[in-house]
Amino acid sequence: MAEHTIKAFDEDIDRLRGLIAEMGGRAEAAIESAMTALQRQDLVLAAQVVADDKRIDAIEAEVEKLVIQVIALRAPMANDLRDVIAALKIVGVVERIGDYAKNIAKRVPQITANQRTLEPVSLLPSMAQVASEMVHDALNAFAARDADLAVAVVERDTVVDDFYNSVFRTLVTYMVENPKTISECAHLLFIAKNIERIGDHATNVAEMVYYAATGQTLPDRDRGGAAAEE
Amino acid sequence: MAEHTIKAFDEDIDRLRGLIAEMGGRAEAAIESAMTALQRQDLVLAAQVVADDKRIDAIEAEVEKLVIQVIALRAPMANDLRDVIAALKIVGVVERIGDYAKNIAKRVPQITANQRTLEPVSLLPSMAQVASEMVHDALNAFAARDADLAVAVVERDTVVDDFYNSVFRTLVTYMVENPKTISECAHLLFIAKNIERIGDHATNVAEMVYYAATGQTLPDRDRGGAAAEE
Repeated sequence: MAEHTIKAFDEDIDRLRGLIAEMGGRAEAAIESAMTALQRQDLVLAAQVVADDKRIDAIEAEVEKLVIQVIALRAPMANDLRDVIAALKIVGVVERIGDYAKNIAKRVPQITANQRTLEPVSLLPSMAQVASEMVHDALNAFAARDADLAVAVVERDTVVDDFYNSVFRTLVTYMVENPKTISECAHLLFIAKNIERIGDHATNVAEMVYYAATGQTLPDRDRGGAAAEE
Repeated sequence: MAEHTIKAFDEDIDRLRGLIAEMGGRAEAAIESAMTALQRQDLVLAAQVVADDKRIDAIEAEVEKLVIQVIALRAPMANDLRDVIAALKIVGVVERIGDYAKNIAKRVPQITANQRTLEPVSLLPSMAQVASEMVHDALNAFAARDADLAVAVVERDTVVDDFYNSVFRTLVTYMVENPKTISECAHLLFIAKNIERIGDHATNVAEMVYYAATGQTLPDRDRGGAAAEE
């Protein structure tokens, strides 16, 4: 590429990275707010999380537009092209993470303020904290092309899976003992599942970062979680 | 583009479409087999669905490689470039549909052969049938750039959501009356949710097809389902 094209390309890439960082920050904030809304039974905050998700979707659309523009105008070479396509894939994953946070928030009104019902899920906030940190670190690993940090994210996914297994068993036991709470507990089960999926998606991002940085794939760990409660 | 480049580009696009059609066919087959495995408690078939998902993932990787190659070698212009990027997005969605089918199959061994437990979910196979047809039609709409068919897919998503709401209520009632089945019913709840998500993803594909064919977006229906059981 001519020098001015390289400069323009670098500026585009900077803007792309900025958008992804903003999107990641918003997704993390959405997870945190959704969990706060759940714990405090704060319906206003829950509605806010649902509304804010539109901004995450809008950033994804913006990234997509920018990627097409970068490819069309700058005709990046193989490696740069792969980076740009990787950015597109990563925003797709972050958008899904935002959706999971939104889904958690949407369930808040369906779980009535009943201290006893919420008692069995004291693990959920800590579980969400780990998942949210994984999202944070996965995007930091992407920004810094840090393969070691990416590996650390992938390894932490078992923590989230272990949390999920505990929550699943605790909730099932609680439902058996308190059949009146079954409907609410079912929503809590889905919330636990959503958090578990956030961990999976952070892991996916970390795996993409690792591959981009090293050219190697990490050994297959066969996550995907649906049977994680085994 | 020079004429030979156009011809090569068209051949690449044909190959791309062929791969997407194959992937879609495999995803549909996976949904069907997963449901058959569930109904017949066929653990061998369930394991087969899980194993076959690797082929769907492999096709996604192949499409991604081909897309990068097409962009790098053929330098498609704006509209063609958008089509190629759309293909990349669509295979991402089909890959997720395959994952949902795999997740259903993974739960089969966790649901013990108990005719009474399966009784409340007589709706699941019909629900899966509608979702699977949506996937089929969404990919046909993509292949034929058929905006009307895409609209029909989007409209059918409410059928799947209605099924889901019925299954959710039926299962909760069943759990209350039969606390011993709670753990199995929880798995069935997740299966229902997976099918509901397949419908959502087919809808996403249809929305992309509609946008590509008309340049318009369909009115926002705010799906995403987590609160569909309201």
